[in-house]
Amino acid sequence: MKKIDIIGRGNVATHLAKAFEGKAETRLINPHTLSGINRNADLILISVVDSAIRDVLEALSKDKEVNSIVAHTSGSTGMDVFKGLPLKEYGVFYPLQTFSKKKSLNYADIPFFIEGSTIDAAKMLKEYAGMISKRVIYADSNKRKRLHIAAVLACNFVNHLWALSDKYLADEQLDFKDLLPLIEETVEKVKTMPPHLSQTGPAIRGDEGIIKDHIHRLKDYPRIKEIYSILSNSIQEL
Amino acid sequence: MKKIDIIGRGNVATHLAKAFEGKAETRLINPHTLSGINRNADLILISVVDSAIRDVLEALSKDKEVNSIVAHTSGSTGMDVFKGLPLKEYGVFYPLQTFSKKKSLNYADIPFFIEGSTIDAAKMLKEYAGMISKRVIYADSNKRKRLHIAAVLACNFVNHLWALSDKYLADEQLDFKDLLPLIEETVEKVKTMPPHLSQTGPAIRGDEGIIKDHIHRLKDYPRIKEIYSILSNSIQEL
Repeated sequence: MKKIDIIGRGNVATHLAKAFEGKAETRLINPHTLSGINRNADLILISVVDSAIRDVLEALSKDKEVNSIVAHTSGSTGMDVFKGLPLKEYGVFYPLQTFSKKKSLNYADIPFFIEGSTIDAAKMLKEYAGMISKRVIYADSNKRKRLHIAAVLACNFVNHLWALSDKYLADEQLDFKDLLPLIEETVEKVKTMPPHLSQTGPAIRGDEGIIKDHIHRLKDYPRIKEIYSILSNSIQEL
Repeated sequence: MKKIDIIGRGNVATHLAKAFEGKAETRLINPHTLSGINRNADLILISVVDSAIRDVLEALSKDKEVNSIVAHTSGSTGMDVFKGLPLKEYGVFYPLQTFSKKKSLNYADIPFFIEGSTIDAAKMLKEYAGMISKRVIYADSNKRKRLHIAAVLACNFVNHLWALSDKYLADEQLDFKDLLPLIEETVEKVKTMPPHLSQTGPAIRGDEGIIKDHIHRLKDYPRIKEIYSILSNSIQEL
């Protein structure tokens, strides 16, 4: 069995260890001490906060030969974090998912984005990701950053629109939970067809009467009103 | 068994007929001819496009006594649509869900919003909705309009953010489908806790470096850039 040391104690590290269970011999390594780290493991994964990756890499390689391929798991950290370090092969091993310790996940569906210092490194990292997931894609740092921006739009901003709806409904003793069946249907649709084809609502219908009425009703919510106008315009443009 | 005539041939009418199956005697009535309509049914539901509701009501009640309680199923049509018509009892019977003919739904989870011309009418409509759904709420036209605006934010605009992500990814041969596991997790979270508590991303972390970098990278996408700025500000305000 391949030997994989995972440096980190957070959600990503924990889930990766679990994902490799039965497929590789994994160990979780304390990022502060690196106690017991095996510098001859087949793979060393670094799953720590972005700002700590460089420190861990330096501690790992200082005065010690590292024979493993070394990869970090961050979407927003480029390859330059490895610069000038005495590593043989290295790269990025980025699972595009949000992890929380409590929740179990179907790892096979999580897309992994891979970048390698050499073609061989990329191939090897792709193989390791392939042990967990059925969806592994090569992506350089530019593509990973584009993915991150898209994820901000598609998840962070989406969640914020829900937070605004929640607040707006609560002000009249209405319950955001009553929107959940509609939200679930919206998600079901996006799984089966491109979202621009399933767009509904007053903006795509060109129902200017309803749009005007809504904007008028939002007069006490200037921020929501602004978002309503801009997103309605954007829908009509696209 | 109660007798319910449903005027309409669209998705809502079809689904309502299905939802009442085995619970009431329903018939779908052609809205253009009203052929065979029973003006002594227990309930007459009008499920036609908003702009046709008044015409149907006039055709239904012109020179004929209507003994049924009559309700429309529109979220954005007020009670004034019934004004001046010789109806005894009437109201609104609004299921908050998006219906497509092909897709089956779990009707018990769909929230119904009820308004009645009298307390008795409201109670009766609530009973009928209760035959289908376990969630029935009284809501006047103002509350229904607030729900509609919230649904635009939480579903129409959300779908549009997905459409923008899709386009932005496709421009670099990346695949929107790779965001689906992350989107599903975002939805799973909103089912279990208020969305403002599960907000993630650079804006809520106050990570101005990442925000600036993202906005810079969006220079060729002025509309997405504008949306990115405004929603990031809005996240930080809330």
